[in-house]
Amino acid sequence: MPSISIKGRTMPQSPIRKLVPYAENAKKNGAKVIHLNIGQPDIKTPQIALDAVKNNQLAVLEYSRTEGSEGYREKIAEYYKRNNIHVQADDIIVTTGGSEALSFALGTIADTDDEIIIPEPFYANYNGFATASGIKVVPVVSKIENNFALPPIEDFEKLITPKTKAILICNPGNPTGYLYSKEEIQKLAKIVLKYDLFLIADEVYREFVYDNREHYSILQEEVLSNNGIIVDSVSKRYSMCGARIGFLVSKNKEVISTAIKFAQARLSPPTYAQIASEAALETPQSYFEEVKTEYVARRNLLISELEKLEGVKVAKPQGAFYCIAELPITDADDFAQWLLEDFRVNNETVMVAPAAGFYATEGLGKNQIRIAYVLDQPTLKRAVHILGEALKTYIG
Amino acid sequence: MPSISIKGRTMPQSPIRKLVPYAENAKKNGAKVIHLNIGQPDIKTPQIALDAVKNNQLAVLEYSRTEGSEGYREKIAEYYKRNNIHVQADDIIVTTGGSEALSFALGTIADTDDEIIIPEPFYANYNGFATASGIKVVPVVSKIENNFALPPIEDFEKLITPKTKAILICNPGNPTGYLYSKEEIQKLAKIVLKYDLFLIADEVYREFVYDNREHYSILQEEVLSNNGIIVDSVSKRYSMCGARIGFLVSKNKEVISTAIKFAQARLSPPTYAQIASEAALETPQSYFEEVKTEYVARRNLLISELEKLEGVKVAKPQGAFYCIAELPITDADDFAQWLLEDFRVNNETVMVAPAAGFYATEGLGKNQIRIAYVLDQPTLKRAVHILGEALKTYIG
Repeated sequence: MPSISIKGRTMPQSPIRKLVPYAENAKKNGAKVIHLNIGQPDIKTPQIALDAVKNNQLAVLEYSRTEGSEGYREKIAEYYKRNNIHVQADDIIVTTGGSEALSFALGTIADTDDEIIIPEPFYANYNGFATASGIKVVPVVSKIENNFALPPIEDFEKLITPKTKAILICNPGNPTGYLYSKEEIQKLAKIVLKYDLFLIADEVYREFVYDNREHYSILQEEVLSNNGIIVDSVSKRYSMCGARIGFLVSKNKEVISTAIKFAQARLSPPTYAQIASEAALETPQSYFEEVKTEYVARRNLLISELEKLEGVKVAKPQGAFYCIAELPITDADDFAQWLLEDFRVNNETVMVAPAAGFYATEGLGKNQIRIAYVLDQPTLKRAVHILGEALKTYIG
Repeated sequence: MPSISIKGRTMPQSPIRKLVPYAENAKKNGAKVIHLNIGQPDIKTPQIALDAVKNNQLAVLEYSRTEGSEGYREKIAEYYKRNNIHVQADDIIVTTGGSEALSFALGTIADTDDEIIIPEPFYANYNGFATASGIKVVPVVSKIENNFALPPIEDFEKLITPKTKAILICNPGNPTGYLYSKEEIQKLAKIVLKYDLFLIADEVYREFVYDNREHYSILQEEVLSNNGIIVDSVSKRYSMCGARIGFLVSKNKEVISTAIKFAQARLSPPTYAQIASEAALETPQSYFEEVKTEYVARRNLLISELEKLEGVKVAKPQGAFYCIAELPITDADDFAQWLLEDFRVNNETVMVAPAAGFYATEGLGKNQIRIAYVLDQPTLKRAVHILGEALKTYIG
């Protein structure tokens, strides 16, 4: 049989995927695996969203409008207004998940070989979207010592070249859980205006903000009207990750008209998912309050349990449902694999995400892991206990 | 307010979208517009697919498996076997529409600035996917005189450079309706093997093949096991364009493992759509027979009516539901716009797709239009009548 070599671009491997075979093997051998590694919430999807799909009356499952229907986008604009983000239906494109919104944003503002600056650690799939679009990610380091706050603005400034087209942030952050303050957003606004860049903000965790803090969106900054692009998603907000609906939002008309051309090429976002997502907008406020209360309780438990472990340093997350922990080890990849292969407490182990995969700078984060607190409290408590026992054995 | 210039890549505008405002305006002014320009079939979606979604029992709308569930992919492999395409579940990735399958295929096999050769006229969105991936489309001309059959293989050979990574075909073709013969596929197989290229085949219209001809898939050619990639979709097959489910199929393990990395970045294909698509596999054969019978009747009517018009040349389609017609005019863009702006028969007009947008070579296809016969026969007949009257007025 003739051979052919793949000569495509080199897509990065997700930091978690490498471990999946070990987790599968552990389960095959009868062990239970507590997944601290994934962002799939266990929270129920709002019934109103599920029912809307069950009660749909479609006879022909047609293409929807490329950018989402006028009616749906008007309702989304109302949602944003309730969140102090003043946009119109025409400032919104409905996408196939936040993933697609980010792909469209990158393609719209950057040509191949252009650069975007991202504070690291960052959501690993940003690498994938950049690679698929032929764009270079330039990292700027944020540090666990100060909870992964915005790096000094001079650090950004040093990295700006004629090829730099945007700064990309995730707020609140995956994997850091850090929530940027109004002052930090304003600092970013100043620098993107100074250098004629875009500020792209992944705000998919907007609702997951704790300790009476408030989320401050980039589009609440009026000066960012032309330079700001929000990437958004219904996935976490309504625990409907499988819908695959997101939004690209910008008050810059040229951004929208250009992004729509990318959207037209793929025809339309999924129809059933739009039915669910439109209905989800009617989710009662009590749903979010309950969810938030639960996440705060989980976070508090997780952090206090982790802080009891010797040599473990934790960044205290103020949003989203992730935290980064620094362990008294040198190679979290090896530790994570060892947990799955060799370590059990009552035949149970944990799967963590080694944090090096969230850094673009080689060598950073090698003693850190990301934990997603999307599990119930007793399981979380057990998981940290296992982690603690594991550390003793691994180090000893 | 500060200004910022978009410095992204230049996405091509779809040839049809330019006309949309004129169509909207015509309707606003009370005219009826018969859409010969779109590929949205009027055929009902199989009830079994619609019911599966209505009866779903999901409580948490979770991410699905990145490449589609094992069970679903096994059923898809069975579907392919029934179509004489012998692939396994692991040779298949479930994608968000054929669009995404094509994006993944291009990203997998070509780096930025690489080239793919495509017989023109071709599906205009191929331009969009290539641009988004930073890849160059190199067209090879096929001609209406021979129904848009495969161009001479020497014409391909002349265009191959070290940057060429693949030949891409659509079979049967949108916008041509041409069905490649087994011999033509074998010629393509020979040249891709000779030059170590991939052959990507968009086979989304596989079922829409007429006149007792049979579709011959590239993966029926055993020599293409390593070099062949099928792009597929449920959109037209079950008239479920709004689902957004497609497949990338290849027996080349490296293609699949690389494409899965692109798939992982976007997490998963839409869950509800997969429920519908999996159920659609049980659609009774009678459904397809009825649909095919209807399309053949529409095609025969359309072609015979078009051939009655003076100066009109038509390629006879053997598959899909499009045909290209050459008109006795010099600028189909102008003609199409004029139809929407100025021409009415009983307050009715037609919207056609100017074919120049399906050619990459500047200046080709300017006197051609694409017609989609996805409308009932009386409407089609009326549409061609209006087209005939319009030509008389426009030329006169």
